[in-house]
Amino acid sequence: MILVKIGGGAGIRLEEIVRDLAQLEEPFVIVHGANALRDEIVLKMGLDKQVITSASGYSSVFSDKNALDAILMAYSGLRNKRLVELCLTHNILAVGLTGLDGRIVQGQRNRGIRVVENGKKILKRDFSGKPRSINTALLTLLISQGYTPVITIPICDENGFAINSENDDIVCEIQKALNAETVIQLIEAKGLMEDINDPDSLIPNLSRAGLARMEQKATGRIKRKMHALNKLAQSGVGQVIICDGRTRNPVRNGLSGGGTRIQ
Amino acid sequence: MILVKIGGGAGIRLEEIVRDLAQLEEPFVIVHGANALRDEIVLKMGLDKQVITSASGYSSVFSDKNALDAILMAYSGLRNKRLVELCLTHNILAVGLTGLDGRIVQGQRNRGIRVVENGKKILKRDFSGKPRSINTALLTLLISQGYTPVITIPICDENGFAINSENDDIVCEIQKALNAETVIQLIEAKGLMEDINDPDSLIPNLSRAGLARMEQKATGRIKRKMHALNKLAQSGVGQVIICDGRTRNPVRNGLSGGGTRIQ
Repeated sequence: MILVKIGGGAGIRLEEIVRDLAQLEEPFVIVHGANALRDEIVLKMGLDKQVITSASGYSSVFSDKNALDAILMAYSGLRNKRLVELCLTHNILAVGLTGLDGRIVQGQRNRGIRVVENGKKILKRDFSGKPRSINTALLTLLISQGYTPVITIPICDENGFAINSENDDIVCEIQKALNAETVIQLIEAKGLMEDINDPDSLIPNLSRAGLARMEQKATGRIKRKMHALNKLAQSGVGQVIICDGRTRNPVRNGLSGGGTRIQ
Repeated sequence: MILVKIGGGAGIRLEEIVRDLAQLEEPFVIVHGANALRDEIVLKMGLDKQVITSASGYSSVFSDKNALDAILMAYSGLRNKRLVELCLTHNILAVGLTGLDGRIVQGQRNRGIRVVENGKKILKRDFSGKPRSINTALLTLLISQGYTPVITIPICDENGFAINSENDDIVCEIQKALNAETVIQLIEAKGLMEDINDPDSLIPNLSRAGLARMEQKATGRIKRKMHALNKLAQSGVGQVIICDGRTRNPVRNGLSGGGTRIQ
């Protein structure tokens, strides 16, 4: 079983990826993003992106109803179904699902962010949270019947509400649920880089220990990414391949030694 | 088995409908529209709605790539997943699907419309077509495992491409595939009316012969609706109930004698 994570950057070449996937002999599951598309839709529709600052000084995106609507249009609608269509035209019998559908990705809603408003500390709660479990029965039922699940956000909270979540965390839960041997992540970079400003500093091979050291050095959003990667690497996966989704034959390249391999 | 068609008008009360559906003892399948939502998104995003006039003088909407994108955002994304969410919060284990997913609604693409351009007759082909068959195996598999399919456009053409289609035709195909005994259609009217301008002219009961007579008298878009209804009534269904989706307890009202019943 291969788990394929397709990033949501504007440079990712979806058709190249799907053409490669159609050649795989093992079954696979796709988890995909759509952040560039979401930003484009938000801009065109004049929706506001709410950013709030916590009492302790951290800024983060506040996933209000509008933000979830934009996710539903971009991730669950346009990107998910165009990706399913691309699969179908390449003879992959895809079924597009959000975490809501059949509660396939069950999450836990965040408890809220402490903010200061009018001099008072209050708890503001948005529609975001973390995946906690997978409806493995539904997922394996579909796979056993020859379908390829194509999964994206939102996920489902304890009460059935749609919540935003990190795709990295969803990938981690699905890997555990399916015991996927290989995880391929298609991103807008050659792989993990020693120095983000030096295009020749690609790290071709990385041990789990090396990855843990990289997490310690990282800061900001990269640190969160490295943390998710570390969690994935430690969850019993055989290998994680991080490779360039902007090239020709991106999956084939990744499986045959391109990008960064964590073993 | 009950097949529930929920119209896409702005006045349809989705939460009322879902609250009623949660009380049903029989399994059911939902097919829904989202035309008002689609028009709103098209307007906000400044997408053009292409209308073309055929050589024989008929105007129709031309489903180009933009029109399909709008369908994917409105029907497949926002409306489908908010409806799934509403189901989940009412303990209905819904799975939202377009006709593309697992090729659940297999269609045939229209061959094109003959138009006159620069004095020449040419064939213009858009992304639209008619449903021809249902992936009954996938649909019944989901139902047998306790899931409630929530289905919308687009559907899938012969080559795997997304195409627009009439929900009325999709309902007809699904009714046949599942041999649904009852079809409930929730619309923005009290039911079928003798005179569309007279709110007191509701037709409570209609025979199949009476329906056929109504089709002959109808014109324009209503004629197409009546034609689809006639096809449905003649396909072996036990009863078709057409009732008001704008009221409280719309499904309960329909099942207990409200609206129009065709038997």
